[in-house]
Amino acid sequence: QAPPDIMFATLKFAALLLAVVVCWATQDYDYNDAEIDEEPTLGDSPYGSLWPLPQKVQISTVVFKLSGASFHIFDAKESSSGASLGTFSQLVYKDEYGAKSINRTDIHDFPRFAHRGLLLDTSRHFLPIKVILANLEAMAWNKFNVFHWHIVDDPSFPYLSRTFPQLSQHGAYQGIRVVPEFDTPGHTQSWGKGQKDLLTPCYSGASPSGSFGPVNPMLNTTYDFMSMFFKEVSTVFPDAYVHLGGDEVNFSCWKSNPDIQKFMEQKGFGMDYSKLESFYSQRLLDIVTTTNKGYMIWQEVFDNGVKLKSDTIVHVWMGNKVEEVLQKVTEAGFTTILSAPWYLDYISYGQDWQKYYRAEPLSFRGTDTQKKLVIGGEACLWGEYVDATNLTPRLWPRASAVGERLWSDRDVRDLNDAYSRLAKHRCRMVQRGIPAEPLFTGYCAHEYKGV
Amino acid sequence: QAPPDIMFATLKFAALLLAVVVCWATQDYDYNDAEIDEEPTLGDSPYGSLWPLPQKVQISTVVFKLSGASFHIFDAKESSSGASLGTFSQLVYKDEYGAKSINRTDIHDFPRFAHRGLLLDTSRHFLPIKVILANLEAMAWNKFNVFHWHIVDDPSFPYLSRTFPQLSQHGAYQGIRVVPEFDTPGHTQSWGKGQKDLLTPCYSGASPSGSFGPVNPMLNTTYDFMSMFFKEVSTVFPDAYVHLGGDEVNFSCWKSNPDIQKFMEQKGFGMDYSKLESFYSQRLLDIVTTTNKGYMIWQEVFDNGVKLKSDTIVHVWMGNKVEEVLQKVTEAGFTTILSAPWYLDYISYGQDWQKYYRAEPLSFRGTDTQKKLVIGGEACLWGEYVDATNLTPRLWPRASAVGERLWSDRDVRDLNDAYSRLAKHRCRMVQRGIPAEPLFTGYCAHEYKGV
Repeated sequence: QAPPDIMFATLKFAALLLAVVVCWATQDYDYNDAEIDEEPTLGDSPYGSLWPLPQKVQISTVVFKLSGASFHIFDAKESSSGASLGTFSQLVYKDEYGAKSINRTDIHDFPRFAHRGLLLDTSRHFLPIKVILANLEAMAWNKFNVFHWHIVDDPSFPYLSRTFPQLSQHGAYQGIRVVPEFDTPGHTQSWGKGQKDLLTPCYSGASPSGSFGPVNPMLNTTYDFMSMFFKEVSTVFPDAYVHLGGDEVNFSCWKSNPDIQKFMEQKGFGMDYSKLESFYSQRLLDIVTTTNKGYMIWQEVFDNGVKLKSDTIVHVWMGNKVEEVLQKVTEAGFTTILSAPWYLDYISYGQDWQKYYRAEPLSFRGTDTQKKLVIGGEACLWGEYVDATNLTPRLWPRASAVGERLWSDRDVRDLNDAYSRLAKHRCRMVQRGIPAEPLFTGYCAHEYKGV
Repeated sequence: QAPPDIMFATLKFAALLLAVVVCWATQDYDYNDAEIDEEPTLGDSPYGSLWPLPQKVQISTVVFKLSGASFHIFDAKESSSGASLGTFSQLVYKDEYGAKSINRTDIHDFPRFAHRGLLLDTSRHFLPIKVILANLEAMAWNKFNVFHWHIVDDPSFPYLSRTFPQLSQHGAYQGIRVVPEFDTPGHTQSWGKGQKDLLTPCYSGASPSGSFGPVNPMLNTTYDFMSMFFKEVSTVFPDAYVHLGGDEVNFSCWKSNPDIQKFMEQKGFGMDYSKLESFYSQRLLDIVTTTNKGYMIWQEVFDNGVKLKSDTIVHVWMGNKVEEVLQKVTEAGFTTILSAPWYLDYISYGQDWQKYYRAEPLSFRGTDTQKKLVIGGEACLWGEYVDATNLTPRLWPRASAVGERLWSDRDVRDLNDAYSRLAKHRCRMVQRGIPAEPLFTGYCAHEYKGV
């Protein structure tokens, strides 16, 4: 799931205030190019500080004062209280005398996409539980409902199954699902340190070089290990899905190993190592199927033609040919989630939330049936350059832009209106204790106090 | 002092680990281009975690244990204790038994440049005193000695002269000078809100448009105000210098105003509005001279040919033709400080500290006398996109790279060695409570705990 090359293939220059020149890295597909890079201006939105914008809102001029003594909330039968409570708090404001007030407002709301995810990466840097929990809280405010936990990767393996039960519990309580990712057969260097013979020994000429490659796909012990491991994972995480990764498998180590070469010959794979990858993936998917979990996989597993169960979710992340890939995946009948436009670990000068906001998941060519297979997307904050020191302000309010794209109606894309509401929404997050970074010059009524 | 256009004129693509593709915005002059973009590898430096590297270090293998009871520090007669105490703490480490230890080390140290500054901007976002003080502390650890306080600008005017005396006091105590900047005649929108008739009324055709431009240079009341104002400033800030700005004066409002047009005619300036700018600047410089302060100015004031006192410090910030400008300014005999390569408000994916580290202030053509006029530089963190939520991790350890460039010998530029020391230096800042952001995947023995 490395960054898409194409993300940087097109570079535009946009003039800002004060002749500030900005380096925008935009993606080379229609989602963004369809619209012009206009700088929004900061005014007042008729929707106040609502974020993400509900499907239908009518704010009247009838004002109610809120009194602590007499105030109660009653949910309508058909409403989901988690979402409606969150929206309610966004409607409350102080009048000129400081009294908490709310206008009579009719809202009919539901999310446009079912899967509104956020990926955090706990392998590349340590994240204290406190930081993860605070960000789950902020996810709820932004109506995200899936925490994609990229828990392990090459650098470290911080999964200790019995120690974090409160994380999935807390997530469940918030209405946020926790989908753990255990990425194989690549991205597994850290697994090899604690599990002998799991990884493929790389060779330098005729002898082992001492380094290791992807999971060794030819040993029965590999599959015994994976069976036991994913059985445990399936009991620790209550969600119906587990993310199996499958991205960026480097074949050079497999190619160097004479035993693997022999195995390839026996299986009749010729020199096509993607067949070996498929061999591994299919056995792993069979194993996970026995745990009664559904699975998500990064797009390469689909691209390489691995046979997938029909309820597999294909996770599209590569920045090139996004439309084409979405077309193909949905044509093949697979459910899909999109992350390609929302790699928040890429930073640039200026208001890049606009780029995330403009991305439209359904602008590819396809039938209505195909479009329905796109169940949502995920903002990804990969961990190379973030830890507890900088993660939270880098994530918010940039991820909020993705939150609205995944919740609100397709036609909600007025940048000026969004800018106004998002600036207020950001101040609200700051007031609630999340150090969300500023969108531009300005101030909040309640500024962040910390270092 | 808007961002230099040229910063983004050259764009290169560099391959990182995991085929990560990075968008580097490099500057188009020899300082950076002379060297190849090689990715440093993280190993151990023979200099441990020292940052910035002293001028001369010899670390022996003789180990002393430090005991709280018997340990004392004696300064050599010629040493400046502020710097030597800081360096000492960087030499202490825990041995395998956890005992605090130090190797016998001989250090002869002095700064390469006298002016090692950092600009913070309190106009575009509110910065709590706590945040400013914490960053003054981190400045001292990195041997910066000038806090260039861009205190007011268009958006707000947070200077309230009698309320922050502890800031300059504290700065002085740390060995850090506080140089306040009061930028005129442009960047003064916020002044106009509290001072009637100070700014030029802009015209739309024959009548005033209601908006205002730069300071009105034709009224005597303007100079009366400035005399009183800078007299006060000179007593509030003890430093021998005040920064007078002078950058980015927009002439369009002056041009629209019929009274200004008449004044231009009377003065014989023709249509050359930079002559009007010079007229204002010279009167202002005369005023400040009477307060017995020296002054710094942004390079435009020099570029526009304003007559300057010989001890004026010219601040070079524009990214284009940096070498040429340094040549000209020093040829004219002016002392100069450099900021062009160190605009830290520009962010990009990856390890941009390397770009700041590679910049070399003295690579322009000139005599030794000219070179000596470059007394240092300043890292600038303009405030459009930073406030208390994200300022500190965005500043450190990126500013540390500038810190070493301005302190250590010109030949200290081994990227691998720097990477190793900087990674440890960053962990030390984290341990001391400054949320300095990570350089890359990895961990510190004492991680940051906060949100």
